[in-house]
Formats: sequence, structure tokens, C-alpha cells
Amino acid sequence: MNIIVDAFGGDNAPLEVIKGAVRAKGELDTDITLVGDEEKIKKCAEENNIDISSLRIRHAATVIEICEAPTEIIKGKSDCSMAVGMKMLADDEGDAFVSAGSTGALVVGGTFIVKRIKGVKRAALAPVLPTSTTPFMLLDAGANTDCRPEMLQQWAIMGSAYMKGIMGVEKPNVMLANIGAEETKGRDLEIETYKLLKETPINFGGNVEARDLPTGVADVCVADGYTGNMLLKLYEGMGKFISRELKGMLMTGLTSKIGALFLLKKFKAFKKRLDYSEYGGSPLLGTSKPVIKAHGSSDAKAFYNAIRQAYQFTLSGAIEEMTRVIGEVKTVK
Amino acid sequence: MNIIVDAFGGDNAPLEVIKGAVRAKGELDTDITLVGDEEKIKKCAEENNIDISSLRIRHAATVIEICEAPTEIIKGKSDCSMAVGMKMLADDEGDAFVSAGSTGALVVGGTFIVKRIKGVKRAALAPVLPTSTTPFMLLDAGANTDCRPEMLQQWAIMGSAYMKGIMGVEKPNVMLANIGAEETKGRDLEIETYKLLKETPINFGGNVEARDLPTGVADVCVADGYTGNMLLKLYEGMGKFISRELKGMLMTGLTSKIGALFLLKKFKAFKKRLDYSEYGGSPLLGTSKPVIKAHGSSDAKAFYNAIRQAYQFTLSGAIEEMTRVIGEVKTVK
Repeated sequence: MNIIVDAFGGDNAPLEVIKGAVRAKGELDTDITLVGDEEKIKKCAEENNIDISSLRIRHAATVIEICEAPTEIIKGKSDCSMAVGMKMLADDEGDAFVSAGSTGALVVGGTFIVKRIKGVKRAALAPVLPTSTTPFMLLDAGANTDCRPEMLQQWAIMGSAYMKGIMGVEKPNVMLANIGAEETKGRDLEIETYKLLKETPINFGGNVEARDLPTGVADVCVADGYTGNMLLKLYEGMGKFISRELKGMLMTGLTSKIGALFLLKKFKAFKKRLDYSEYGGSPLLGTSKPVIKAHGSSDAKAFYNAIRQAYQFTLSGAIEEMTRVIGEVKTVK
Repeated sequence: MNIIVDAFGGDNAPLEVIKGAVRAKGELDTDITLVGDEEKIKKCAEENNIDISSLRIRHAATVIEICEAPTEIIKGKSDCSMAVGMKMLADDEGDAFVSAGSTGALVVGGTFIVKRIKGVKRAALAPVLPTSTTPFMLLDAGANTDCRPEMLQQWAIMGSAYMKGIMGVEKPNVMLANIGAEETKGRDLEIETYKLLKETPINFGGNVEARDLPTGVADVCVADGYTGNMLLKLYEGMGKFISRELKGMLMTGLTSKIGALFLLKKFKAFKKRLDYSEYGGSPLLGTSKPVIKAHGSSDAKAFYNAIRQAYQFTLSGAIEEMTRVIGEVKTVK
């Protein structure tokens, strides 16, 4: 196996990427190829006394910036580290791709360079979020703003295969984000999607209201990318809000400081649970090979987690499962 | 002034409604009329030794249940407490209406019995939510699933007038819920709404991403009712999730119990801040007179808060302000 890693994606590139890649090479049974400016990678490793002799390097001259149009990855910036890495994946020079760079560019590259699974209409961003019990996959979390019921149906199939294959959930409970439990709730999109999901070979658990998501009732939650992005960001924002409030509580007043000593450890564990980057990155589901979007603020540990996730994704055979079920559903219709 | 209160709305009716109404009558300079089965109201007050001689009562034979179709309020259930109370409001027998009953029925009744402000396309549910700094109004939070830009524009005007008139925010920062900060982000609905809001006589602060809502950056957040309902319910769900987790932290382990003694008071204050029913109820904005939806689980204190909110809403002149600005905007177009 060879996992291709964009060395110039994210706020902490290339140093934290290199560190995470070296750790992954040491712990996982796979080769790792760093993609990016070779000279800069070597210089950064040298300056930080990191031995990168176990890693492969593929040179790429430029980097696509967050502020650039995502389509630049297939236009003016086709020599950027993300494009070169994805091209390698498409050309069978590697088995999976990890990047903390521009999400938009990753979606465009996943669609037009790596290419989609046969029959898949749209690729979806699929982060795994923490709850008070078991985590759930939310998709689409923002790759597609205007969606049709068939897209949500395919995402339901893909999310289910992922949660089973990579997260080990026996029979993932797939639910549809909606504003009420009844089949007739929501907009035309949800009403039509509900009908489709009832006839899809997955374990469909009906509608889920946003208030129930943090309890872990769903293993997979499908939504259009506009709604999914709202949910993802509010989830993230509420986590930060709470962390700040807890910190405030711990820091003010003498009595609290005494109490804080006892609770500090638990608070830290709780904060960590709210941090969804702990689960690795967000897979881009629907591409013909595993593509993982690491969080922009990833550190070495987060990069290691994302690479390990790509490793497990590759081993799981989940993409073959997605391909099979999506093919079946297409034939039936 | 006379505030009309549905005595049979919510999980704790009529006892908690009666208690809240008696307190409001004692503290606010207004009459209060309880609407509902007169015999039951009197019997409940007697059994609980509550003196209701200061309150007026208007008899209504039935109650509209949550499980009934909302349109029943203007059909088979036109003799229910909610319908009778709203008819009183429409007939100038009172100045504001409060109910903890079916939200759907309240929206239908507000639209077809109380009727809308001249020119208003749709009434919107508008809860006020807590943040780490100042609270914000979210609208529409679920009354309308399919929306047009003109609706969101009117809600922006109404939310701004409410936050200024009732919450005392000098120049409310009105923002549009969206998946990115740039003007070109979102679906056609958001892109068109953004253009309209730039030309509306309000303090428009651009797009707000869901992750920033808990910081209190917006005073008013407008969204279509589907998205707004998702945001409201996730806000609520995250609050409950966090409260449960905190409780769990406090209850496990000896060291934590010792720490807990010191922090308990602060935790309670924090939990209270997350509970949006503390702000009273959710106004239904767009009706020609104040209508307040109290939370279904309201207790006496929450009913008191909702009645006080109706009182302030009536005194504020916010509806006159909404009428004026919406009229202006209509003329310009």
C-alpha cells in the first residue's frame, strides 16, 4: 500500500504533515509519499532534525490556496501538490490520498481527477461527529448546496458502507435530517428522499430531528449539503462555546479554582470528545479511491489520525461495497 | 391593557398557567384573561388554594391537541381555547395573546384569525437564543419550510424592530444564516436575499456561519424556516447534551464530588443560561398584534416570563415600527 499525503495542505504545513507521516510510516504497514516542493520538504525536515528517509517524495511546484477558486486545481494550478497527489491516485501510483488543503479544491479534484465511483452523481463530505454515546457520520456536510433525492440516497448507501467497514458498526442506523419525525415532514426534497430510502438496501431508521443528533441515535445522518454544513458548523461552534464557558468557570473565583483542580482532568477529556478532529479527517465519499480531508488546523497527531483513517479505509473494501450497492439500486430503478 | 392567555396550552396546563397569570397580574400593570373551560379553571384554582379573583375568565369548550392538524383551529376546533383567545385579540377585546399549545395551530390562527400586518407575506417563529455574550433572535425557526427572498427580507425588518423595541438593542446587527461569509455563498435563496438585505433600511451585517452564532456576533439571524428549525433544535440538543455530560462529570468519582461542591453553583447558572425558555416564549412575528408561543414544557415562571414579554411587546410599539418599515420597502419596490 502507498498513501499519498499533500505536504502543503493546512495551517501547519509542511512541518506537522511531515511529523504525522513519519509516525504513520513507523506504525502502519504502508508506504507514504509526501507531495510538494521537494526542496522545502527536505529543508524543513533537516531544520527540525526529522529523519524522512523512510518516506517517498513526489515533487510538486505550487500550492493551491484557500482563497483561490476551487476549479483552479484543474486549470491554472494543475501543478499544485493537491492536483499532483490526486493525479498519482488516479494513475494507480497510490491507494489513498490525504490533504488538509482547500475543501472546495479537494471536491473538484476528487470529482474530475480521481473521478467518481461508477454511477455516483455527486461526491459528499462526510465528517464523523462525537455524541454522548456513539459517533455518527454526517453527509453531505457542504460539498453540494443544491441536491436531489437520488443524491441523498447514494450518500445513505455510502455512509452506511463506511460506518460498517471502517467504524465497525454492524447494522448502521441511517437517518434523514428533518424538522419532524413523520414521513410527511420537510420540504419536497425530504419527502421524496424518505420514499427512496425506504426502498434502499440499508437499515433506514426514518427522520432525525437536529435536537436528537447529540444523543447518538443515528449512525449515519443524510442531509443536503447546505443543511449539513449548517449542522456541522453549529456542532463545532457549540463545542467551542461550551469549552470557553467551562474555562471561564474554572478560572474565576477562588472556590472554583480549588474545585477546578479536582475536575480538570475530566474537563480535558470532555473537551477532547467534543473535538471531532480526534476521529481523523472527513472522508470525501463517492470517489473511486479513498480521499480524506484533514482539518485545516491539523497538528502532527491529527495528520497521523487522518493517514491511519486512509489506511483503514483502503483495507476495508468499503468502496467495493458502495460500488456494488449503488450498482444494484441503479439496476432496480 | 388586557393580555389573553390560553389556559389549556402546554404540558402543565391549567395549573402552571394559572399560577403564572396570577403572578403577572400582581406584578404588571395589565388585566389578564384566562381562556378555557371555566369550570375546570375554577376547580383547579380551588383545589390548589389559588385566589383567581383578580383574573378574568373567558369560557372555551375544547382544546386543540398537538396531534391534531393545525388547520383544525379554523375548522372543527374553532371553539378551542386557542381559537377563542385569538378571536378575542382580533376583535379588540385584548392586546396580546400567549399560548403554550400547538405551534402549528398558533401559526395558522395567527395568520387567519389574528391576521397579518398589512403587506406581510408570512408570519415567522422567532425565538431568542442565548450565546456566550448577548442573545440573538432566530427567524424563521420553523413556521415556513419553503421560502422566498422577500419573506426573509420582511423577517429581517421584524426581527430588527423586535430586538430594538423589546430587547433594547440600539442598532441590531441583522445577519443572514449561510455557509460562508462571501456574498456569493449559498443557494439562490441566500444569494438573492443578500442583495435585498443590502438595500433594506436595517443594519445588515452580512452572512453568518452557524459556528459563529454561539458567540453572539448577530442580534438577529434570518433563515428559511427549514434551516432555522434545524439550527434551533440543534442548539437545544447541544445544550441538553452538555448538561448531561456535566452532570455525569459531577456524579462520578470521589475526587469529582469534592470538586463538584465548589463548582455546583456555577454549573447551575450555566445550565440556566443554555435554557432558552428563560427568555420567555417565542414571538410569532408578522401578526397584527403580539402573539407569544410559550414553550410546551413551561412552568409558572416560564408563563410569567411569556406574559411579561407580551406586556413589553405591547408597550414597545414594535408592531407599528414593523408596519411602517415594511410599508416603506413595499412602496420603493
